[in-house]
Amino acid sequence: MERVTVVGTGLIGGSVGAALRRRGVEVTGVDSDAHRRAEALEREVVDHATGELGRAVEGADLVVVAVPVGAVGPAVASVLDLGADAVTDVGSVKAPVVDAVERARPDLGARFVGGHPMAGSEQEGVAGADPDLFVGATWVLTPTGRTDPGVYSLVRSFVAGLGAEPVALTPGDHDALVAVVSHVPQLAATTLMDLASTRAVEHAALLRLAAGGFRDMTRIAAGDPAIWPDICVANRDAIVETLDAYLLALGRVRDSVAAGRSDELLHLLESARAARRSLPVGVEAAGPLVELRIPVADRPGVLAEVTTLAGRLGVNIADLEIAHSMEGTGGVVVLVAARRGVERFEDALAAAGYTVARSDLP
Amino acid sequence: MERVTVVGTGLIGGSVGAALRRRGVEVTGVDSDAHRRAEALEREVVDHATGELGRAVEGADLVVVAVPVGAVGPAVASVLDLGADAVTDVGSVKAPVVDAVERARPDLGARFVGGHPMAGSEQEGVAGADPDLFVGATWVLTPTGRTDPGVYSLVRSFVAGLGAEPVALTPGDHDALVAVVSHVPQLAATTLMDLASTRAVEHAALLRLAAGGFRDMTRIAAGDPAIWPDICVANRDAIVETLDAYLLALGRVRDSVAAGRSDELLHLLESARAARRSLPVGVEAAGPLVELRIPVADRPGVLAEVTTLAGRLGVNIADLEIAHSMEGTGGVVVLVAARRGVERFEDALAAAGYTVARSDLP
Repeated sequence: MERVTVVGTGLIGGSVGAALRRRGVEVTGVDSDAHRRAEALEREVVDHATGELGRAVEGADLVVVAVPVGAVGPAVASVLDLGADAVTDVGSVKAPVVDAVERARPDLGARFVGGHPMAGSEQEGVAGADPDLFVGATWVLTPTGRTDPGVYSLVRSFVAGLGAEPVALTPGDHDALVAVVSHVPQLAATTLMDLASTRAVEHAALLRLAAGGFRDMTRIAAGDPAIWPDICVANRDAIVETLDAYLLALGRVRDSVAAGRSDELLHLLESARAARRSLPVGVEAAGPLVELRIPVADRPGVLAEVTTLAGRLGVNIADLEIAHSMEGTGGVVVLVAARRGVERFEDALAAAGYTVARSDLP
Repeated sequence: MERVTVVGTGLIGGSVGAALRRRGVEVTGVDSDAHRRAEALEREVVDHATGELGRAVEGADLVVVAVPVGAVGPAVASVLDLGADAVTDVGSVKAPVVDAVERARPDLGARFVGGHPMAGSEQEGVAGADPDLFVGATWVLTPTGRTDPGVYSLVRSFVAGLGAEPVALTPGDHDALVAVVSHVPQLAATTLMDLASTRAVEHAALLRLAAGGFRDMTRIAAGDPAIWPDICVANRDAIVETLDAYLLALGRVRDSVAAGRSDELLHLLESARAARRSLPVGVEAAGPLVELRIPVADRPGVLAEVTTLAGRLGVNIADLEIAHSMEGTGGVVVLVAARRGVERFEDALAAAGYTVARSDLP
């Protein structure tokens, strides 16, 4: 990968640019705002900056669309119309964008793979750009039955090259999961901070009593507010469903407190602690590896099916290669994964009709 | 202060012991559990360890009761019965304990001042003890109309000596405020972690998507579960009231998301961010100081009234002294406070019938 174009030079676009430049990739930044273009150049997160999409797309090996969630769909369509070979984005919501692009561009949509790096910052704009932002972070990719396998491989390499861990999910699964681990936590923290701040009007000492736990819990409420209304619109159904589940669970806790049911509270606290303590930390040490060779028929969607199945089962794919052409009479998907727990993946592949050849790597 | 006895050698008791020993104070630890006594000695957080309360109370300048919330009341009463001159505690709930002690020991209760250091750790027991745990932390004290001014002064010096910032609140105010900044956040984080962990059963990738925001928000769910059921019982009313307010506010957010009312969401996010960004960090630089001299009549409760008024108004008292005897014909409370914003405090004192003489300190 020699030349990459980043559309949108904010926090994420700037971080992508900085990380790529450090690896010797030539980066062109596209931004409609002249001030932001100047800042991107000044902070050296891009080699070139332009307001013209057309020239920037031409000759790029990959176009990364890093504009606000509400603008991703139209931006990706424009980039595809300009003849881009491979396109990905970094938006926080995937299904509406992926569906819109594939519906609007049935012919060109194969060259787009949705993406979402699970990394951020309380800072805003290119001032917060950090070439190490993605190191060790999970980066979701959402290939579909229409995705071109070569484009998927390219985007996957790009993500792994930034130090992130690519995880394939269906767009719908992605949206349901981020509602739980990102969108609802953001709204819950924001609401808690607002409640405390309202109460602080009556009692000035309140916020002086806020110790580390409260600070930790409300930290995300300090982030850029402007991105969230669009996310709430784009992922409305999953957020409302998750908020309802959270309200129900918290209502039950309220009733346990009111009724003095200490055993119920203790049980909840213990199970939550066990879950919090076993939260995966960064990239897991892979341990012994296995290679899985999966002959695949010449039908679309095989790669998306195999990789999102791995994502769903929590199988960490250390490497992925498509041996032989996926066109013509078929090919072989070669996956390298952790040996530990791989049996479940093999079983699921078998159940889905695949034949899997496994060999332990030294 | 030469000799202090700490009853209960867990995380907080051990940290108090370690901090005092570093300052040359002789510390006796009392614990009913022989294993914990041995560990406290081994970790050098106490000079002596005993299972016998009587001998340990004798000769101590101050007794710090650091047992679980449910056991504080009876422990304080026992310590008072053994003739202690000054007693404080470190429990997370104050009104039930202070009320119980003052009701059970109308004669001796004056020697007890409730306390609560707003500092903790995800670690448990003396293994997590840290002499710097309280540096820069707010430490609430809850003097009442019955509290002996000399005992209050002593406990205040002890707290300031550990590097913490003493803030005086009424027991009821304390309990209402910690429900907002500690108890409800703990329950909200625990419930969120449990919800995510339940969803992770269906989708193994879920917790791999948990980035920094989710980790921050659920960090307190990793703490010791055992302390919380007692806290929920002791502070039930304030917790239920605050949870109800939180559920109501979060329900409104849910409705805003469902109806796509982006302007409401943006407004909430912006006001929460402003509040989070202005959260006081550690000890504020005091800036210019003033001295307030407040002649007080010979009636009980003056000190509690003056200091909790400062706490309520968020006035940071840098130093406090009682000039002349509070017994006899009256005395003078001498306060040193930040000049900035002190007018509100002066007005409130005047409204409460006090005459205040103010002089700016160089």
